[in-house]
Amino acid sequence: MSLRNFKVEKYLQDGETTYGQREAIEKMADELTERGYDNVVAIGIGGTWAEWYPVVHYMKHKTDLPVYLCNAAELLVREDRRFLTPNSLVVTASASGDTKEILEAVKMCKDEGIEVCGFTKNEETPLAKLLDRAVYNACGDCEDSYLMYFMFGLRLLYKRGEFDDYVEWADQMKDLHKNLLRFREEFEPQAAAIAKKYARMPYNIFVGSGILWGETYLFSMCILEEMQWVRTKSVTSADFFHGTLELVEDGVPVFLFKGVDEYRPLDERVERFAKEHTDMLTVVDIADYKFEGIDEKFKEICSPMVLTALVTERLAAHYELNTGHSLQFRRYYRQFEY
Amino acid sequence: MSLRNFKVEKYLQDGETTYGQREAIEKMADELTERGYDNVVAIGIGGTWAEWYPVVHYMKHKTDLPVYLCNAAELLVREDRRFLTPNSLVVTASASGDTKEILEAVKMCKDEGIEVCGFTKNEETPLAKLLDRAVYNACGDCEDSYLMYFMFGLRLLYKRGEFDDYVEWADQMKDLHKNLLRFREEFEPQAAAIAKKYARMPYNIFVGSGILWGETYLFSMCILEEMQWVRTKSVTSADFFHGTLELVEDGVPVFLFKGVDEYRPLDERVERFAKEHTDMLTVVDIADYKFEGIDEKFKEICSPMVLTALVTERLAAHYELNTGHSLQFRRYYRQFEY
Repeated sequence: MSLRNFKVEKYLQDGETTYGQREAIEKMADELTERGYDNVVAIGIGGTWAEWYPVVHYMKHKTDLPVYLCNAAELLVREDRRFLTPNSLVVTASASGDTKEILEAVKMCKDEGIEVCGFTKNEETPLAKLLDRAVYNACGDCEDSYLMYFMFGLRLLYKRGEFDDYVEWADQMKDLHKNLLRFREEFEPQAAAIAKKYARMPYNIFVGSGILWGETYLFSMCILEEMQWVRTKSVTSADFFHGTLELVEDGVPVFLFKGVDEYRPLDERVERFAKEHTDMLTVVDIADYKFEGIDEKFKEICSPMVLTALVTERLAAHYELNTGHSLQFRRYYRQFEY
Repeated sequence: MSLRNFKVEKYLQDGETTYGQREAIEKMADELTERGYDNVVAIGIGGTWAEWYPVVHYMKHKTDLPVYLCNAAELLVREDRRFLTPNSLVVTASASGDTKEILEAVKMCKDEGIEVCGFTKNEETPLAKLLDRAVYNACGDCEDSYLMYFMFGLRLLYKRGEFDDYVEWADQMKDLHKNLLRFREEFEPQAAAIAKKYARMPYNIFVGSGILWGETYLFSMCILEEMQWVRTKSVTSADFFHGTLELVEDGVPVFLFKGVDEYRPLDERVERFAKEHTDMLTVVDIADYKFEGIDEKFKEICSPMVLTALVTERLAAHYELNTGHSLQFRRYYRQFEY
């Protein structure tokens, strides 16, 4: 199955490069464990906030240590940030390394004597120059970010005795990209059909929950709104029933990203309802995609990586084909000062 | 100035009734202080989640005590709820007293030996029968909920020595409804004009931040989506710049709810941008409304109450007039099992 606008060899090569960061990531986590910390603060904004979301979400399952996910722009203004101290383990990321709000938030931390570690594409970015510790990787697919951030977060937990499966999981991640490539191939005909049917719809509801919420939010806002000018409403499976449901009817597209974590019953409730009340329901179910060489018990951790491969990458490629709107084109974002 | 579909005397009377709960609310807070607790867990869903939002948000400014805001449906499934113990102070609310997810979450707490206190309209509701401690009030405007929940949360902080202004603030709240009535009158011509212009627009962006985020979310989802079948996207002022901005152009309505807390610079950034890029920007600025008899230092606490009076109540009344869609009419919500 050939994939639209997708370079298979480069993708697998990028996967190896990302996996190759494992040692550097573990070293960074282990040094910080050695240094000590009394909470973890992840700083992101937009796409990076969404990418840290499942990592922070999953860490909270495993630890009583306070773990915070902060929006960089809000962190700069909010008054309630007593938790952010030199004893915090602060981590951030910006592939481009020049995201304005991230740079300002990191500078604020540094001014307050707080160390910051993070991820950026190379040693030359403005972010790289500010970070106390960094991992460099120019491979920019979202699953690469997820893989690196999870390696970091789960390694921290492993060193605290709160995620004993770390080595087994990290070893198996060697096969991640191969699996995600196969899932792309399996999903490709659906991606083409979904995009053909819905890419020019005037309004679209996106529903997800639990560990998939970050990616649901990211796909609708950072991909469809930013890169395709497609109008979206994203809502959690729980909140869907407290307002948004009233808008559902034949002709209104509802996209449900069905997870494999404990929130799945909430997704199933949305599915039952939407099936009855719109003829335009699309379900992307993570359970349909079977990993080879990756244990079932790691499926939740890997589910945002699967979803991003399917929708943020594949579905976007087919939206572009149908909207005629290049994924590279922006009219405002990063085009001038605002 | 006459207000559409608004009974002034009943409103002021309801305000007195709500204010009259002060003693019962303080008693409940003080008893729980006496009992002791090591964290506070507020449980809501949809509108009630949004109404607890600013209270939890403000409490976090003042205390290091962990304060959690939980979505009831999610609390029922999530695995990471070690924080919820018999030592938690759990509080919830449902005016109707029969919100399904709230009832189930409270039952779960009770099954685990965890006391729950809360707010509901009277002693007869299903919720009332489950609560260990309750305050009863049938007055259902959102500002009444805000007032009661803030009284409860701030009283807790007062007893912890973290909000010394409590008595002064609570005394001044006697004048709240009178002020909110005047603000309604000041806003009425604008409400009529805004609704006339925008009520039938096919897509609407709502932006807010900080202590106003809950109400921004509530108005767009629980009022416009649920009660008016108006399509919305709500987004924080910080995230607006990470996707949604690309959709802004002439003919696209952007509603900015401008706050008076430390997040205001984020709102101002949205305003500057939107002014340039759409001819359909509407700004509701809390700073335009001047309290009499309520100190400037309490403006932030009162800002969600102002916003709800202006938009969730007033603007909604004028939307109804222009859409012809009764605010009482639902096709799905609470109409049958789902």
